[in-house]
Amino acid sequence: MSISNKAIPYGSVVSTPLSYQQAIERVKTALKDEGFGVLCEIDVAKTLREKIGADFRPYVILGACNPQFAHQALAAEEQLGLLLPCNVVVQQSEGGTLVSAVDATAMLGIVGNEAMLPIAREVNARLARVLERAQTA
Amino acid sequence: MSISNKAIPYGSVVSTPLSYQQAIERVKTALKDEGFGVLCEIDVAKTLREKIGADFRPYVILGACNPQFAHQALAAEEQLGLLLPCNVVVQQSEGGTLVSAVDATAMLGIVGNEAMLPIAREVNARLARVLERAQTA
Repeated sequence: MSISNKAIPYGSVVSTPLSYQQAIERVKTALKDEGFGVLCEIDVAKTLREKIGADFRPYVILGACNPQFAHQALAAEEQLGLLLPCNVVVQQSEGGTLVSAVDATAMLGIVGNEAMLPIAREVNARLARVLERAQTA
Repeated sequence: MSISNKAIPYGSVVSTPLSYQQAIERVKTALKDEGFGVLCEIDVAKTLREKIGADFRPYVILGACNPQFAHQALAAEEQLGLLLPCNVVVQQSEGGTLVSAVDATAMLGIVGNEAMLPIAREVNARLARVLERAQTA
């Protein structure tokens, strides 16, 4: 893994030589290969411009969901939908394009249901591979 | 507040005499009145049926976003999109219709950025009013 990787308490961040648009496409393809559908796509810059006229850097939230894991997790925790889907963010920062993914085990920390730990770990392993693929030119 | 209220570590849950569909409409209206747009709507039952043929109870995730608060929060924490939008869940359980909202301060607990605490508290106050309105027939 490259030294551009950064861990934050609730996820992982990587920088990529890809353009913002290229990174979005790469992430979508990688998510699909790892069994995640993109259930929602929020163009934050567009939303902030339209709603409050704010100028914001290119920033998109991709809500990813693996239906098998979501089904198992929702069966174990009826309100888990409050924390779904698992987000991947692509943004254009001053230093280039950044891609980040939420840490599913950190989210579980506030849920307090250990039954879901194996699912969260598997989700994290897949999202780590998505970030790895997003780093390659 | 009714005794049907329940706190979970990552949100609040209320039961309502409304039907599932009525509750969804009520929540959307109340969110709008509190300054939240619904940026994504995930019909979990439909998604699980289409993707893996699973039979799941009526369950919808409404991704709510107040653009002013989102803008302030994203300015203070560049990766916060990993935890946005704030979800409200409407589901049909055995005992009737349940409505829940995420606890924005609990989410902040894993972020560790105290600058956002006032925003999280304001978001929670508004979501509490949304749940309160969802409880009235």
